[in-house]
Amino acid sequence: MNYRMILNFIGKIMGVEAVCMMISAFVGFLYGEFSSALWLALGAVVAFAFFVLSVIFKPKDQVFFAKEGLISVALAWVLMSIVGALPFYFSGEIKGFINCVFETVSGLTTTGATILNDVESLSHGMLFWRSFTHWIGGMGVLVLVMAVLPTASGRSMHMLRAEMPGPVIGKLVPKAKTTARLLYIIYIALTILMIILLCFGGMNLFESVIHTFGTAGTGGFGTKADSIASYSPYCQWVITAFMLIFAANFNIYYFVLIKKFSSALKSQELWVYGAIVLSAITLIALNVRGLFATTGETVRHSAFQVASIISTTGYTTLDFNALPTFSKSILLMLMLIGGCAGSTAGGLKVSRLVLLCKMIQNRILRVVHPRNVKAVKFEGKTVDEETLSGVSTYFALYCICQVVVFLLVSLDGFGIEVSISATAATFNNVGPAYGAAYAGYDGFSNLTKVVMSFAMLFGRLEIYPMLILFIPFAWRKK
Amino acid sequence: MNYRMILNFIGKIMGVEAVCMMISAFVGFLYGEFSSALWLALGAVVAFAFFVLSVIFKPKDQVFFAKEGLISVALAWVLMSIVGALPFYFSGEIKGFINCVFETVSGLTTTGATILNDVESLSHGMLFWRSFTHWIGGMGVLVLVMAVLPTASGRSMHMLRAEMPGPVIGKLVPKAKTTARLLYIIYIALTILMIILLCFGGMNLFESVIHTFGTAGTGGFGTKADSIASYSPYCQWVITAFMLIFAANFNIYYFVLIKKFSSALKSQELWVYGAIVLSAITLIALNVRGLFATTGETVRHSAFQVASIISTTGYTTLDFNALPTFSKSILLMLMLIGGCAGSTAGGLKVSRLVLLCKMIQNRILRVVHPRNVKAVKFEGKTVDEETLSGVSTYFALYCICQVVVFLLVSLDGFGIEVSISATAATFNNVGPAYGAAYAGYDGFSNLTKVVMSFAMLFGRLEIYPMLILFIPFAWRKK
Repeated sequence: MNYRMILNFIGKIMGVEAVCMMISAFVGFLYGEFSSALWLALGAVVAFAFFVLSVIFKPKDQVFFAKEGLISVALAWVLMSIVGALPFYFSGEIKGFINCVFETVSGLTTTGATILNDVESLSHGMLFWRSFTHWIGGMGVLVLVMAVLPTASGRSMHMLRAEMPGPVIGKLVPKAKTTARLLYIIYIALTILMIILLCFGGMNLFESVIHTFGTAGTGGFGTKADSIASYSPYCQWVITAFMLIFAANFNIYYFVLIKKFSSALKSQELWVYGAIVLSAITLIALNVRGLFATTGETVRHSAFQVASIISTTGYTTLDFNALPTFSKSILLMLMLIGGCAGSTAGGLKVSRLVLLCKMIQNRILRVVHPRNVKAVKFEGKTVDEETLSGVSTYFALYCICQVVVFLLVSLDGFGIEVSISATAATFNNVGPAYGAAYAGYDGFSNLTKVVMSFAMLFGRLEIYPMLILFIPFAWRKK
Repeated sequence: MNYRMILNFIGKIMGVEAVCMMISAFVGFLYGEFSSALWLALGAVVAFAFFVLSVIFKPKDQVFFAKEGLISVALAWVLMSIVGALPFYFSGEIKGFINCVFETVSGLTTTGATILNDVESLSHGMLFWRSFTHWIGGMGVLVLVMAVLPTASGRSMHMLRAEMPGPVIGKLVPKAKTTARLLYIIYIALTILMIILLCFGGMNLFESVIHTFGTAGTGGFGTKADSIASYSPYCQWVITAFMLIFAANFNIYYFVLIKKFSSALKSQELWVYGAIVLSAITLIALNVRGLFATTGETVRHSAFQVASIISTTGYTTLDFNALPTFSKSILLMLMLIGGCAGSTAGGLKVSRLVLLCKMIQNRILRVVHPRNVKAVKFEGKTVDEETLSGVSTYFALYCICQVVVFLLVSLDGFGIEVSISATAATFNNVGPAYGAAYAGYDGFSNLTKVVMSFAMLFGRLEIYPMLILFIPFAWRKK
């Protein structure tokens, strides 16, 4: 295990966190909130200290295996969460250290599950930092590191893979660095566009920025206790559209950028994603049509909730619990599916679902026409057995992990519905869940909050990096 | 498609059903219930008519592909369910044809979910037939056909596979016919032993037989509205033990029979099954210890419920709904796991769970020690990639099917907990579920009852045979 190399990577990531916390401190300073600005700045100093450490203890050699890459990413995310929680804790704006860590993990993993009962009492600086974690956690901190810092290692694509979700890496161009840069350019451009559109809708700049961060990272933190319910239909539609945009594969925007429109439209995942979204909206709209006065309102609320859940954002315009069972069941399944690979969304990912269905189709074909079996194809290319077996094994692991989380969460005794939906909502980085878990997660025990914090990290990093952290033999030398 | 060959198989199976219905009619006759005896006998005549048809239209050639084998099995089960429902319907003892079919499907698939609100009002003949379906459905009607009738086809192992659950067929001896006979000999011996043991416990012969049928097939139909709650602790323990016995792989009893005890103990699946049962009993006993007066009572109720659910029997000694969330969550997960392959139990099967875990372990090893990867081994043998991919694809299909059933069931608006547990309880052939679905399934809509009937058949036949029935291109010629 090349510990210095691990420290080196973590240090760089903490450096990025330090900069982000300083920006948040500056926002607090602008609003004249000197106390919260101070605590944010002190948090930045702690994060920066790790960066300094990594500069002092330079790695002696660059030998770095996949195992170490995964462990670095997992450790970096755990450390970011703890250091990121410090301003909340020391400023006293969030009570209890476990609550502070939960809120930060929820932010970084773009879950958006909150333990706050009164979000509107938070200072501007803290609100900004809370939502900023969504934005940096959405596209990935490591991806950002690669985009801005010079990296010596040639194995950086492997590292990128650990943070970028999906069964196959979204490699836009051969070089990891250029890929990372392109991703962030698209990300920033879409972010700016959304801020402008929200400002047009009557939101002030601060609220626009906060809700754009929440949407871009598919996180879900906002500024109000009723989420998006009190904003205008225009704002709700803008957010609906951007939630769907940020949950689609960024490769598509790259193709649009280089004017390869036909390549963008060829994406099978995009079509399936669109089909799921449209069917879910239609079914829910039909199911809830009695609840609203006009068809426009019915469609708006249905579309908003579907976009929010499949993108794993977690904003709401109404209380889920008021919905009929069928609509709640559809939303619960959308939580599990999640967005597309190579997006900022969580969940299993549409591409994995497509590949699983194709594997099943292939199995049936083998029975029905045993002499006429073809290889599984996806987006025009033949998928090798290795990838397929990776996807189906991942699916099994994904289910087993959630069963473990579910059993632990159910120890709190909130009932099956709450335990299942809260597990799905945290593991898939959605946020709000049913029953008691709709208003917030403060009612859960500290043990459950810790379990859920890990669930969010496991889900965001797609299990393996976090899992390896807990496997003793991964730490042993050969 | 060799239709005559399909008819031939179905006819033989219907012949077995005719005999079983005649036996039930005879039981009714013995109790002086001439009306129900008559309707059962008439049902037997209808079933026998199909047998006669198959004798008249003899197949012209014996060419028979896997596809046709699966379709035969699926069609036979659907037809058996419909014909088996006739006595209930025409006697008027169960109201509504859909209810009658639901009850018969539930019997044959060894689910044990009932739409009866007052089981104690049923006549002896009908009670006997209702439970007898468990016994013949448990080991499989086709298996019985093979054991008793001469079969011309050399492909009978393939047919056996369609009805015998598990990832690898439980082939005791090279010949399918001998395997089928051995399985039924063990099955009958265990059945007789259990009837005797229950009679010792003070149950009368009729009740002993009914509850033995319910246990042997891991079904769960009984004679009382409160299931097993009012029987003595001795009877409860006997049923607990036999539920666990019938949910274990029958290969083990074959090894015991031929005195290869070491081979019996080498079964990895058996050990994992035992470990799951013991941990579940311990956890639930700790969780519910406040609810009962003595430790003995706590352990008895915990063991009974665990054995009942993991074996997918569905007998109860208490109302599930009174249990704390954690216990209910554990039981819900046990519903999904189910018993061992090559048993009469439903569910995913322990061996599949073991293989999935081994595949995950293998994946992790590949990351941690990429140069030191070994093939997956199970019960001392290397498992080939084909079987592994079959298991993981089956798991995905198993999950997707249940999601579809869950969404349809949730249309009834009973809430997430009821919809999820009722889906799991029917698809995995368990029986009772949580909330409104504990007392019985009569409250669900007719559409849902039809959906659940198919869910039970899909689950019992492990999806593929039923699925192929619904795929248009399976029916087309090449």
